[in-house]
Amino acid sequence: MAAATPLPVAELIARHQDTLDRAVAAAGSRDYWSPYPEFPKAYGESAAADGKAAFDALLGREFELPGHPDGGEPVTGEASPWGHLPAARAGGGIELGVSYPHAEPDALLAALEAARPAWAKAGPAARAAVCLEILARINARSHEFAQTVMHTTGQAYGMAFQAGGPHAQDRGVEAVAYAYAEQTRLPRSAQWTKPQGRRDPLVLTKEFTAVPRGTALLIGCNTFPTWNGYPGLFASLATGNGVLVKPHPRAVLPLALTVRIAREVLAEAGFDPNLVCLAAEREGSAIAQVLAVRPEVKLIDYTGSTGFGDWLEDNARQAQVYTEKAGVNTVVVDSTDNYRGMLDNLAFSLSLYSGQMCTTPQNLLIPRTGIRTEDGERSYEQVVADLAAAVEGLLGDDARAAAVLGAVVNPGVLQRSAAAAGGELGELALAPRVVASPEFPGATIRTPALVKADADKPDDLSRFLTECFGPIAFAVAVESTAAAVELLHRTTVEHGAMTAGAYTTDPEVETALIDACLDAGVSLSLNLTGGVYVNQTAAFSDLHGTGANPAANSAYCDAAFVANRFRTVEIRK
Amino acid sequence: MAAATPLPVAELIARHQDTLDRAVAAAGSRDYWSPYPEFPKAYGESAAADGKAAFDALLGREFELPGHPDGGEPVTGEASPWGHLPAARAGGGIELGVSYPHAEPDALLAALEAARPAWAKAGPAARAAVCLEILARINARSHEFAQTVMHTTGQAYGMAFQAGGPHAQDRGVEAVAYAYAEQTRLPRSAQWTKPQGRRDPLVLTKEFTAVPRGTALLIGCNTFPTWNGYPGLFASLATGNGVLVKPHPRAVLPLALTVRIAREVLAEAGFDPNLVCLAAEREGSAIAQVLAVRPEVKLIDYTGSTGFGDWLEDNARQAQVYTEKAGVNTVVVDSTDNYRGMLDNLAFSLSLYSGQMCTTPQNLLIPRTGIRTEDGERSYEQVVADLAAAVEGLLGDDARAAAVLGAVVNPGVLQRSAAAAGGELGELALAPRVVASPEFPGATIRTPALVKADADKPDDLSRFLTECFGPIAFAVAVESTAAAVELLHRTTVEHGAMTAGAYTTDPEVETALIDACLDAGVSLSLNLTGGVYVNQTAAFSDLHGTGANPAANSAYCDAAFVANRFRTVEIRK
Repeated sequence: MAAATPLPVAELIARHQDTLDRAVAAAGSRDYWSPYPEFPKAYGESAAADGKAAFDALLGREFELPGHPDGGEPVTGEASPWGHLPAARAGGGIELGVSYPHAEPDALLAALEAARPAWAKAGPAARAAVCLEILARINARSHEFAQTVMHTTGQAYGMAFQAGGPHAQDRGVEAVAYAYAEQTRLPRSAQWTKPQGRRDPLVLTKEFTAVPRGTALLIGCNTFPTWNGYPGLFASLATGNGVLVKPHPRAVLPLALTVRIAREVLAEAGFDPNLVCLAAEREGSAIAQVLAVRPEVKLIDYTGSTGFGDWLEDNARQAQVYTEKAGVNTVVVDSTDNYRGMLDNLAFSLSLYSGQMCTTPQNLLIPRTGIRTEDGERSYEQVVADLAAAVEGLLGDDARAAAVLGAVVNPGVLQRSAAAAGGELGELALAPRVVASPEFPGATIRTPALVKADADKPDDLSRFLTECFGPIAFAVAVESTAAAVELLHRTTVEHGAMTAGAYTTDPEVETALIDACLDAGVSLSLNLTGGVYVNQTAAFSDLHGTGANPAANSAYCDAAFVANRFRTVEIRK
Repeated sequence: MAAATPLPVAELIARHQDTLDRAVAAAGSRDYWSPYPEFPKAYGESAAADGKAAFDALLGREFELPGHPDGGEPVTGEASPWGHLPAARAGGGIELGVSYPHAEPDALLAALEAARPAWAKAGPAARAAVCLEILARINARSHEFAQTVMHTTGQAYGMAFQAGGPHAQDRGVEAVAYAYAEQTRLPRSAQWTKPQGRRDPLVLTKEFTAVPRGTALLIGCNTFPTWNGYPGLFASLATGNGVLVKPHPRAVLPLALTVRIAREVLAEAGFDPNLVCLAAEREGSAIAQVLAVRPEVKLIDYTGSTGFGDWLEDNARQAQVYTEKAGVNTVVVDSTDNYRGMLDNLAFSLSLYSGQMCTTPQNLLIPRTGIRTEDGERSYEQVVADLAAAVEGLLGDDARAAAVLGAVVNPGVLQRSAAAAGGELGELALAPRVVASPEFPGATIRTPALVKADADKPDDLSRFLTECFGPIAFAVAVESTAAAVELLHRTTVEHGAMTAGAYTTDPEVETALIDACLDAGVSLSLNLTGGVYVNQTAAFSDLHGTGANPAANSAYCDAAFVANRFRTVEIRK
C-alpha cells in the first residue's frame, strides 16, 4: 500500500528530518531540548477553549475509529476524578460516557498481523517520519489531550497539559529518535574486501535490514496514560511493529485519541491503520492476561502494580517485557546551605499530584541528632515541623492547593489518606486536609500527610518500607547520616525505587550517597532547592528509572529500551 | 586496588586505544578488519613448535590458578577426539589428564562478589583496555590455544588455529568494542540549561555512570569453546561484571587457559583476579543448573542444545539469558552461472569440521524438475550426483580429508553417521567413508553422508526437519523453487536456523528468497562460489545469528547483545 502513495511518505520524511536530527543530537548531548513548547499559551489565544470544546464533543457518545475491528458490546465506564465534568451535555456529570469499539483478541490480533508487512518493509526513515507526524498532530491538540488526561487521572489542568501533553510527546519523540538511531547504526549496505595476499581479494556485498519482532502490546496506567504510554508505543511502532493499545479502564480516552490520530496518519501515508489498534476493556475483564500470552505478541510495555508486572515477566515468556512497577523512593537529609529552598522544594515534591507519581519521595530520612544548615543546627523535630509548615504554606489557599494536588485518582489512595489521618500509620507531623476546589466542588482532594517514624522501631519499618502510594510521606528518624545512606541502599535493593534524593554539603557524605546509589542502581538528585524536583525527569536529558532495581526492568530511554524491539537480518552476496 | 597501581591501567589504555578505535570503526563500516593475523606462520618460525611444547607441558598435571577458590576433589576427564595425544608423556594417550581446581558454588560466587566493586568502578575505558590486553596475550599464544581446541573439539589443526584462535579473538574484540561504545554513548557528564523566559535559566549538572548487572555465567560448548565463548565472556567483563566460566566438561582446557590469562592480566592491572573464575565440572554433575538460578547470577551466555537452552530461558528468571541453540539450516538451489563453483563451495561447507558447526547446511532443497546452469539444465539426480562427486573429490585424499573434516566430536555424532550409512535416514547419494589420519591413526573420521529425501513424503519430512548434527546432509527434492522458498521459511520459523543459503540467477527468485529470510529472521548468503562459505561469519562485518528465530535469542554482536549487560545511573545536582 505504501508504494501507491510514495509522495506523502517522502514529504513526511522531509518535514520531520530536522526534528529527528535534533532529537538524536539532544539525546547525545543531554542538554535541554524539546520540539514542543510547554507553556499552554504558546498554542494560541483560543487553543484552551478549542481544546475544551473538542473534549466536550467527545463526551457521551461513541468513539469513532473507522475501519477498526469491532463487533462486541461497546466498552464504557470512565468517570472523572474531579467529580464533575464541565460537559456540553445538559447538567454535566461524572461519567465521561464515551463508548469504545470492542473486539475479541482474535479479531484484533488478526487485524494487526495483516497490517504488519508493509510497515515492516517501510524502513526506519519512513517509520520515524510517520511517528513524528503522529506526535506533531497530537502536540497540536495538547489542550484537548490535557482535558482527557485531567478527567481520567485527576491531574490538575496545568499538570495534565504539561505532563500529559508536551512532556509525554517529548518522551515519544525521544523513543523515535533512539529507535531510528539504533536501526541505522549498521550501514544499509557495505562492501567487504578481504585481502588474500597475491590472489584476488575476497569481496562480498552485504545488506543489513532491521526486521521487527511482531505485535507489541501496550498496557497503560491510570495516572500517566500518555507520559508512561508513549515511550513503549513509539519505540515499538518506530521499529516496525504493530501496537495493540490496552489502556487502563479508567484512563482510556487519552490513549484512544492517540490511537485515532495514529490511524489517521498511517492511512494518509498509505499504511493500514490497523497497525495501531485499541483493546478497550471493561474494568475487571482481565483482557491483558489473555493478550499478554498470545503467540503473536512479542513485545509488552507495562506500567502498574508490582503484582501484575511480576506476573507478566513470569508468564509472557514469548515476549520481551518492559515493566515499570512499584517502588519506595527515599530522600536523605544530611545538611544544606539553603534550608528554605530545601523545604520548599521538598514540600512541592510531596504535594505535586497528591504524591500519586511513581517518582514521589515517600521516606525522608533525617538523623535524629539533627541536620546542619546555613543558620546552624536544626533538630529532627524542627526539620519535620518546618517541612510541615512549608507544605501548609504551599497549600494554604484552596484554589492553589487544588492546582498543585489535583484530585485523588482512586478509592485506594483515599483509604490510605484516611488511614494516615486516623493515625494508623504513625504519629502525624502534618494531618491531611480536605481541600475544596472552587471549580470542581465534587472533587476529592487531600493534602499530604506527614507521618513520623523511627528507623529503629520494627513496626515503623514495616510500614514505611512498603509502597504507600498517594499523599503520604514518612519523616523517618535515623541514627546517623551513615545509617540513612545504608537504609536508602537497602530500601532500593529490596523494594525498588524510581528516584532517590539527598541534601548534603559534606563531600564525604556526597561520595557515600553516590556510591550507594550506583551500587543499588537508582538515579540520585542532589541538593535540589530551585525549580527542578526529584519527581520530574526531562526527556532527552534525564533517564526515567534505571532498570537496575526492582522498581523497573528498563528505563526511558536508552539503547536497551529499543535494541531488542527489532533484529538485524543480513543478506550477503 | 586499582588506585594503588594507576600506571599500568593508564598504560594499558594507551597501548590499546588504537585497536579499540579501529574495532569500533570496523563494526560501523562492516568492511574487513582484524587486529590479528589468521595465518599460522605470521606468529613466527618457532611459534607452532613452541605452542605444542606449551600444550604438552599442560598435560597430565594440575592446572594452576593461583588464588582461585579451591578445596574439593580436582576435576579431570577430557579426552582427545583425535584418539591419541602427541604428549610429552611417555607413550602419549587419549586422556589429557589435566586436573582443574574444584570449588563449591558458594565459594565461587562469594569470590566473584568480593572482586566486583573495584572493577565496577574502573569505568569503560579501563575495562576495555584490560580486556584487550587479555585478548592480545591470548593471541600471542594462538598456537598453544590451537592445540587445546584441537584436542578437545576434534577440529583439525588449521581450523582449530583460525576459528579457535584469531577468529575467536576477533569476536572477543568485537564484543569489547560494542560494550565500550554502548557504555560511552551518553556523555560522562553534561550540563542542562533550561531557559525560563526573563528569569534565570534552570541549570543542572548531570553525570551518567554505566553500572554492571552482577555476576555473569558463561556456559561453554564442546565444539567451539573459544569462538562461542568469547563474545559473552568479553561483553560481560567489559561492561563491569565478573564472569564465572563453566566450560563443557569435554572442552575445559581452552577456557581454563583463557581464565588463567585473564586472571594474570587482572592481577597485574591491580584488580582482583577472582573477577574471572572457573567452574570446572565432571561430566554429568549438572552444576550449570545450580549456578544458573543463583540470585548473584544476572547474565548467562549459553551455546548448546535446545533442551537446556529452553530450560535456562524458563528457569533462570533472575538473569538476562543469551542462548544459541539448535537449528536446521537450509540451502535453496534454483540456478547458477557457476555450477562448478557452486558444487565446490557446497562440498566444502558440508565437509568442514564434519558438519559439526551450528552453521553447517543440513537441507539442500533442489527442484525435482532440475536447475538451470551456465551449461543448460541439470536434473535433480544429476545435481545430487555431481555434488556427491564434488565431496568425494574434495575428500579423496585421506590426509587432506582429515585436515578438512577433523575428528568426530562425540559418540552421538558417530551414531548418526552410522545410521545414515546404514540407510536409516533414507537412500544414500553418498555414503560416509571412514578416513584414516596418517598423523592420528586412532581418530574417528567420517566423510559426510548425502541422503536423498522428498519434501512431499511425510516420513522424509520428519527426518530432515529435525536437527541432524554432524556429517549428514539431505538432498531434498522439492516441487519447485517456490516450494523450496516456502520450505526454507517454514523450517526457519518452526525449527530455527543459524544460516540460510541460496543459489539463483533469477532476480525474482532472489527477491522471494530475501523476503522469506527477512520474514523468517535468518541471514542469507547468496551465490557463494568462491572462498567464502555459508558456515563462516567474520567478526566486525557479519552478524552470527539474528536472534529472530528459534535457533538463538541473540546475535554476535549487536547493541542488543551488550546493552542489557549494564544499566545507566544518573547523578544530577
